[in-house]
Amino acid sequence: MFKDMPREYRIRFLPIDRLFPARENQSILELAMDAGVHINASCGGNGVCGKCKVRLTEGNITSLPSAAIGEDEYSEGFRLACQSLVKGDVTVEIPLESQIDKAILTRTEKDTHIFSNSEGRIFQAPTIPLVSNVYVELSEPTLNDNRADLDRLTRGISDCVGLAPVTATLEVIRGLGKILRDGGWKVTATVAGHSEGYEIVGVDSGNKLDGQYAVAIDIGTTTVWARLLDIGCGWPGVKNLKPERGWEGKQPASGQVIAEAADYNGQISYGEDVISRIVYARKKGGLKKLQSTVMKTINELIDGLLARSGVDREQILLVSFAGNTTMIHLLLDIDPTHIMLAPYTPQATHFGRLKARELGVNVGERTSAYVLPCVSSYVGGDIVSGVLASGMTEDESIRLFMDIGTNGEIVLGNKDWLLSASCSAGPAFEGGGIQFGTRASRGAIERVRINPASFEPMIFTVERARPTGICGSGLIDLVAGLLEAGLIDERGKFARDAATSRLREKTTGWEYVVCYASETQIDQDIVITEVDLDNLIRTKAAMFAGTKVLLDRAGLDFREIDTIIIAGGFGHYIDTEKAKTIGLLPELPNERFRFIGNGSLAGAHLVAVNRDCWKRAEEISRMITNVELSSNNRFMDEFVAAMFLPHTDRRLFPEVTARRERYKKCRK
Amino acid sequence: MFKDMPREYRIRFLPIDRLFPARENQSILELAMDAGVHINASCGGNGVCGKCKVRLTEGNITSLPSAAIGEDEYSEGFRLACQSLVKGDVTVEIPLESQIDKAILTRTEKDTHIFSNSEGRIFQAPTIPLVSNVYVELSEPTLNDNRADLDRLTRGISDCVGLAPVTATLEVIRGLGKILRDGGWKVTATVAGHSEGYEIVGVDSGNKLDGQYAVAIDIGTTTVWARLLDIGCGWPGVKNLKPERGWEGKQPASGQVIAEAADYNGQISYGEDVISRIVYARKKGGLKKLQSTVMKTINELIDGLLARSGVDREQILLVSFAGNTTMIHLLLDIDPTHIMLAPYTPQATHFGRLKARELGVNVGERTSAYVLPCVSSYVGGDIVSGVLASGMTEDESIRLFMDIGTNGEIVLGNKDWLLSASCSAGPAFEGGGIQFGTRASRGAIERVRINPASFEPMIFTVERARPTGICGSGLIDLVAGLLEAGLIDERGKFARDAATSRLREKTTGWEYVVCYASETQIDQDIVITEVDLDNLIRTKAAMFAGTKVLLDRAGLDFREIDTIIIAGGFGHYIDTEKAKTIGLLPELPNERFRFIGNGSLAGAHLVAVNRDCWKRAEEISRMITNVELSSNNRFMDEFVAAMFLPHTDRRLFPEVTARRERYKKCRK
Repeated sequence: MFKDMPREYRIRFLPIDRLFPARENQSILELAMDAGVHINASCGGNGVCGKCKVRLTEGNITSLPSAAIGEDEYSEGFRLACQSLVKGDVTVEIPLESQIDKAILTRTEKDTHIFSNSEGRIFQAPTIPLVSNVYVELSEPTLNDNRADLDRLTRGISDCVGLAPVTATLEVIRGLGKILRDGGWKVTATVAGHSEGYEIVGVDSGNKLDGQYAVAIDIGTTTVWARLLDIGCGWPGVKNLKPERGWEGKQPASGQVIAEAADYNGQISYGEDVISRIVYARKKGGLKKLQSTVMKTINELIDGLLARSGVDREQILLVSFAGNTTMIHLLLDIDPTHIMLAPYTPQATHFGRLKARELGVNVGERTSAYVLPCVSSYVGGDIVSGVLASGMTEDESIRLFMDIGTNGEIVLGNKDWLLSASCSAGPAFEGGGIQFGTRASRGAIERVRINPASFEPMIFTVERARPTGICGSGLIDLVAGLLEAGLIDERGKFARDAATSRLREKTTGWEYVVCYASETQIDQDIVITEVDLDNLIRTKAAMFAGTKVLLDRAGLDFREIDTIIIAGGFGHYIDTEKAKTIGLLPELPNERFRFIGNGSLAGAHLVAVNRDCWKRAEEISRMITNVELSSNNRFMDEFVAAMFLPHTDRRLFPEVTARRERYKKCRK
Repeated sequence: MFKDMPREYRIRFLPIDRLFPARENQSILELAMDAGVHINASCGGNGVCGKCKVRLTEGNITSLPSAAIGEDEYSEGFRLACQSLVKGDVTVEIPLESQIDKAILTRTEKDTHIFSNSEGRIFQAPTIPLVSNVYVELSEPTLNDNRADLDRLTRGISDCVGLAPVTATLEVIRGLGKILRDGGWKVTATVAGHSEGYEIVGVDSGNKLDGQYAVAIDIGTTTVWARLLDIGCGWPGVKNLKPERGWEGKQPASGQVIAEAADYNGQISYGEDVISRIVYARKKGGLKKLQSTVMKTINELIDGLLARSGVDREQILLVSFAGNTTMIHLLLDIDPTHIMLAPYTPQATHFGRLKARELGVNVGERTSAYVLPCVSSYVGGDIVSGVLASGMTEDESIRLFMDIGTNGEIVLGNKDWLLSASCSAGPAFEGGGIQFGTRASRGAIERVRINPASFEPMIFTVERARPTGICGSGLIDLVAGLLEAGLIDERGKFARDAATSRLREKTTGWEYVVCYASETQIDQDIVITEVDLDNLIRTKAAMFAGTKVLLDRAGLDFREIDTIIIAGGFGHYIDTEKAKTIGLLPELPNERFRFIGNGSLAGAHLVAVNRDCWKRAEEISRMITNVELSSNNRFMDEFVAAMFLPHTDRRLFPEVTARRERYKKCRK
């Protein structure tokens, strides 16, 4: 009778040495997810991507065969975790390339610095908080003034701090009379802004203006950032109190950063990119699982911020979220299926004020949640947020906003008009489609120079560790170096006759050896292949062609762009000179480039501390005209034209072209 | 060990013969409440009002003694139900005067007729439904038009039927994509209006414009009325469909009455008037009990309407509620304590759109609830509703709205200004404070004429049954008759020398016998005493003085009132000539009086079918300036001046005075 009950075993994950209970026939990938052990898995667990390799060191499993595991590897115990089922107590080792290195997360302190620049811009205007505590001293009711308690409070709030119209939730109304009387008609109300006015979402007796906080959250596909903000000490809505006194010297809603934290988005275990997440969400229970998983990440981040700062979770008045359209769908438990399927429609892009607790955020009962509005399936709230934070909509200068990541979103415009496009650029700059591509984690090659005489490379890795692979900025450097050294031509094909042993032909094609196995952590030669180069050229061509289409649509030329704003963690590390060399960025003077770091987090921050910014984000999202490139013939033409290094039309890159000509002469 | 467990008995209620389980030491009143057996109890069960008399016919109870039970009555087995605890199996009989006669509820068919007049007025303008189904045929998304599903739907709704701005609940968004695609982009959305726009509260695939309904509910302290309304067949939001086709010949939101029902407010078991209800609500668990009790009444009424009409509860798109401020607090589970305590402040008077199911109304998941706004503690949503339905705010004519009930609310004004007052008139016209006062139930004396020569009365009772008491209209007739016959003077004192044996002195004072015991159902002489007359004069004086104060405030004279609108079930049966004779109504030509019946229900009806009416009700509630009479010295002066029949200032009643002079001469 117990025959059908699965037996209970234990699985040990190495090298982190985590022990976890397992039932017969559970997959190792599934167990790793449950145990909180990260294994790369970019295909959603379908056995396709071949990235979730683990090595069985002890115990009994059954595995389906996979083309991703060579015969040698198989005999060494390598298996795909998603294709391996537990049949007894098991110990598996997760090789370095299947692991995620949290070291990347320590590398973005620049953000804060860069953010303060844009912060400075926006905060010049007096700010109205999006959610705030308001302390009011009300007159006691008399027979000549016996209006309803709620009327007294709302009129008090609008008289004293000028907020109107104010309504209240039924829960607040139910407790109002007692709280007003217990507090001797001196109360602190929490008022939350929405598009039409304010709603009272909580009331306490007495002056509770002792500190109020917000959390701004950027939900990236890979990384979740959370920033705890001091949003002042509330609003002293008492006429004879000078604001300075009530605010205790602080600027209203100063938005000072108390603490900041980041972690990998827990969903990464269910697929690395948005498409694999959507595939997983379509499975039975998948959507709920992804929702609860990202919520776990968010709650752990918030717990950490609170622990570090001593702030009470009840003091968090709001949480603001920015993320791409898929991340926002998953956050709100909305099926993202049609984001993936042509013609790529999200279910919704705009969301009103929500209750944070109802989404699963472990904060106070009255904490509000605001979600930055999205534009389309592939131009999300992260982009709206970044555009807001960049300040590009504040004057008439023409600016180009670029977020170079898996998707490469671009926004062109100024305070009067905005055009956006998502370039489906492919994940080359994040290590996807590149044989030894990697994220900018410890050991990633991030800087490369190639000696044009010896063709030998000089490389720098992240934290100067032994190389593990090549990250985005390293790839740009590498390709620019290969091009200027004449090792590759404009099509990305190797100069087969070049006098270097680093260039070699394999069965898979020609490749250039960046590091020999003995130099690396991975005991393999790190190479770049013609296939890699082709993928990279496609990616940069998509970005460039998308930009060109938007400029054409606006009747503008590249030279008319006043500033190119580069957002995204990756953006920081780009050498603009090299990026121009390969034609990723247009050839403009270096002073026209501006890096804003994590624009998504910066916008979520602004929204959290300023209701005008929240309204502005809504306006921006409505103002943006999205140009769908996948159906655009002009884009295809421009894309083909950009499949050259730097471009078929050399007149677009006169300096780059002149420099290459010089190098060419030198070599002759 | 079982010593402390209460023993289980059974109680039988007669004459309805209902058997119910009882535990030791439960009070009979409490058991009656639980068993759904009505016993009058106007003091909230404190043993003060003495109205909950029952007769023990069998079994064992212990009772506290009460002044309300005479020695004779005690020996006959009479006890106060609220003061009697069960000590074994018990049978009690509820005497007629302690029961509530549902016959009253069959007497208000006039309402519908009278309502249609005001309905006709308001409905001349084209109407926009407050909640409606909208059928839209959307274009399928393409790569060139791949906005979010929600955007597509809201733009479709605003393009086709002109509603904007439209938002949606998170629940709707979560299901939207599938429903749109399952329905081939033809969907029916339920859109609910609020003050700023519309919200989509439900979506179905395909054309579901097959019928939509609303329920308008008037929550009276005594009676709850419910009216099931056909609000058309929804809105065919398809451009090439003529509205006539979609509406299948019906007027949009015609608001046709499908069925109507009324029942006593189940709360009546916890006290007859608002004050006793509030007293009960302050007891532990009392508020919740009152909320669930009125909800039980409401749900039973709705069940009955649905059963009679074959309408499905999912087809009810909204429920609109009108009631006095206390009833609305109890409906929404809001503590009403301070309505009763000086300075008489309600907790709130305005409520946004609510979910009917969350209040406990047994209707569809997407059914909205709207509550007519109140003005103050004693000028409630029933009055706002009546003012709306009366049409008095539609032009410049000066109108006086009077609701003559326990409280006597009055509203004076026109489309530009409104003044209100609650007269704390006392419940004389509803039978309170009058020894043989009763509601207009079977056997109530409703018409009286007194022969000025013989002083003999001629009476008519409701349904011509043997008399049980005197209802409001009967009292007015009786006092007017006594006055014109010279049996009482202007102060309400009997002419002790009048030649009739009906006038007699008892230890309690002088009284006039309306019916002798042998003629009645109650085996007692039905009399009117000087105490009764004094109470009645106070009531009419309060109404008159309140009116005078409002007129003075507006700088107007009685003669400048174009129309007096009399609302309330009681209003129907008033003989205006007699009401003028005693000075309850001002002396104006009869054609200036208009009876609108249940104005509260009529307004709830209008709001349910017309968003403009909902907005108008909000405006009316904000427009009304409430004059608090209890703190008003002018009111006290006017009150004292009106403590005469008809008034100390005879110039206000020239015709009445002249007629009395003529009668006086005849008698000499």
